[in-house]
Amino acid sequence: MALVVQKYGGTSVANEDRIRHVAQKVALACKEGDKIIVVISAMAGETDRLIVLANKLSDNPREREMDLLMSSGERVSAALLAITLNGMGVPAISFTGRQIGMVTDSIHMKARIRKITGEKIRAALDEGKVAVVAGFQGVDEATGNVTTLGRGGSDTSAVAIAVAVKADRCEIYTDVDGVYTTDPNVVASARRIDAISFDEMLEMASLGAKVLQVRSVEFGKKYNMPIYVKSTFQDVGGTLVTQENSEMEEVVVSAVAFARDQAKITMLGIPDKPGIASKIFGAVATKQINVDMIIQNVSDQGLTDMSFTVPKNESRQTINALRPAAADIGARDITSDENIGKVSIIGVGMRSHTGVAAKAFEALAAAGINIMMISTSEIKVSCVVAGDEIDRAVRVLHDAFELALPPDQRKFKDES
Amino acid sequence: MALVVQKYGGTSVANEDRIRHVAQKVALACKEGDKIIVVISAMAGETDRLIVLANKLSDNPREREMDLLMSSGERVSAALLAITLNGMGVPAISFTGRQIGMVTDSIHMKARIRKITGEKIRAALDEGKVAVVAGFQGVDEATGNVTTLGRGGSDTSAVAIAVAVKADRCEIYTDVDGVYTTDPNVVASARRIDAISFDEMLEMASLGAKVLQVRSVEFGKKYNMPIYVKSTFQDVGGTLVTQENSEMEEVVVSAVAFARDQAKITMLGIPDKPGIASKIFGAVATKQINVDMIIQNVSDQGLTDMSFTVPKNESRQTINALRPAAADIGARDITSDENIGKVSIIGVGMRSHTGVAAKAFEALAAAGINIMMISTSEIKVSCVVAGDEIDRAVRVLHDAFELALPPDQRKFKDES
Repeated sequence: MALVVQKYGGTSVANEDRIRHVAQKVALACKEGDKIIVVISAMAGETDRLIVLANKLSDNPREREMDLLMSSGERVSAALLAITLNGMGVPAISFTGRQIGMVTDSIHMKARIRKITGEKIRAALDEGKVAVVAGFQGVDEATGNVTTLGRGGSDTSAVAIAVAVKADRCEIYTDVDGVYTTDPNVVASARRIDAISFDEMLEMASLGAKVLQVRSVEFGKKYNMPIYVKSTFQDVGGTLVTQENSEMEEVVVSAVAFARDQAKITMLGIPDKPGIASKIFGAVATKQINVDMIIQNVSDQGLTDMSFTVPKNESRQTINALRPAAADIGARDITSDENIGKVSIIGVGMRSHTGVAAKAFEALAAAGINIMMISTSEIKVSCVVAGDEIDRAVRVLHDAFELALPPDQRKFKDES
Repeated sequence: MALVVQKYGGTSVANEDRIRHVAQKVALACKEGDKIIVVISAMAGETDRLIVLANKLSDNPREREMDLLMSSGERVSAALLAITLNGMGVPAISFTGRQIGMVTDSIHMKARIRKITGEKIRAALDEGKVAVVAGFQGVDEATGNVTTLGRGGSDTSAVAIAVAVKADRCEIYTDVDGVYTTDPNVVASARRIDAISFDEMLEMASLGAKVLQVRSVEFGKKYNMPIYVKSTFQDVGGTLVTQENSEMEEVVVSAVAFARDQAKITMLGIPDKPGIASKIFGAVATKQINVDMIIQNVSDQGLTDMSFTVPKNESRQTINALRPAAADIGARDITSDENIGKVSIIGVGMRSHTGVAAKAFEALAAAGINIMMISTSEIKVSCVVAGDEIDRAVRVLHDAFELALPPDQRKFKDES
């Protein structure tokens, strides 16, 4: 008998039939003897509908009010699933974020979980009931205000609850059957990954693979809670996100991730002297903009250029924030290029295998794809390429590392 | 400067434009210097949509889960109105039932208010903000469960909040411009009543006039909180529901109310001896069915018939509940007649005027309408008539008491 948290996303509860299907899956797990906590999202489209309505009614809705607004959809889903389970003879009880003691900080629309008391969940399980919890929401203990955990926050609710109640595992049910070596829409031969480490998953999530909210993976890593990503609609497949093990290290490159929503900002003709970078990035940081890759050109006659990437929808704001700094330090100009994207190879095996980056650059070069910027970490290599070459770069890298093959049939090993 | 509670119903916030219109009305009241608390219903149709969905998913949804489900619509409306007001430059903050300390008993779907702490409302008003409160909902303090106050419960929320914060008045905005002498759909010459007593309004509400939830009027009466019923869509008109005064007593009959959703149950051939009535009505009471008018025929050879009315949708359940009692007391048969209705004249003036009932019976007789049952109280006379004669009976009574005329032009006085 295991204690299991099952999380179902918005497409899994999009209508009456799907809610019934989810209830049947829960009922089956109960029948097999497991104790089940279900964490549930709003019915697909509901949260967006409310956001659109709010934006029609005000140019700048307050975040506290948005949180009360947006938290309603998960409550509806939780009540409907509990009603369905009870109707099938499976005892169930719904809970809101507040009722399970999901306490967060006060940062509306992207609150972070501080603690989960979880008493009502434990009491429900002790009574032999399925606990159905509205995901995505918490409560700021000091003010009693409703908070939400940011888009995809139900994943984080689920993993955090699993940690709080010491569940054996957390299952994330979604509309895909696992994590793939890359987006199957771009590379038809993309292969489902059976097991992946938390670190690799974090790189994939932050680089634009949208299966799990990044913070849910951080939680999983911090508390070593295994996360299974599975399809709501198929019983086979799935990907286990877990602690790194020796088998994973054998796999040199696990996946190719990419992000299209990037822009490159360049400051031209800036003096190459201490304190310049802090002025530039200080100006950007005050606007809460997330700067990603940074490169500085070789200095020429005491002047240099500096480029960095930001999310595309923040490029205008970034340039506005930079203008005073540019004037201050005497930069010649600021330019932006929105026709770019980032392509990355990821794998914990890179730690113990050399020549991976070289092979990636070589493959891109052979395909005539120009690399505009490079950044690397222990377990990834990212390249900025032209926006219209993203798909091709992904395919080239996927082929180069033979990701369509099962890991044990791939030939790439150290080339050094 | 007055402290005013304004309640807006579901049709008043049915869409984006109407929410804006409500926000403008609130803004205007603020501009005139009043402090405003808004109590708001779910957008029209939303609660029904959720109920339909729940009933598709289960034959018998648990009431605790229904309450969590149904309370979501008011939260959405409250957040949207606060967002709209803030967008217009009117500082506003939304609150849920729990946040304002709306504590109820544990009877789900028809909870009764126990207390309202209201601290957050007072704090918001002190900060110069409009407090926008989700109506219809409260919280059971012992369990932390969400409760709802029954259909139309936002009216009761509004009046109870007005009492709790010692408001100067409570304004109920709806899709009609006040309380009429009868339903204008049945009698085109029906006249809006400027002022009506709590007691008359209670009779009207419980007799089928659906302007205010009965309990909101009970609250108003108990704590003497004046209630203004006004149209959201027109600035003129309105009806004040308030304590009885001498002017009201001058008006002999204030209104004609009616209810179509009635059934008459008759037990035939029952022994006319003590204890029979308690057996019959005890059996009905255990099913929580609300018995209204009761008549017992004159006894014939030690046997009698007994008839009473119940809501039409409970007539089958009533008969089932009665069968064992009928066998027990040896009744000959149980019959039901669903083609009936109840028509009533109401007026505090009846207390000081005689001949009112006689005039009503006379008018119905002159029109050839048969009276099947009669019940009277200090301020009303109710008659059961055939279902297809309800409309005509209403018109006849409305004419007989000249209700289309202003009260001071009506000629009917004591005839005794």
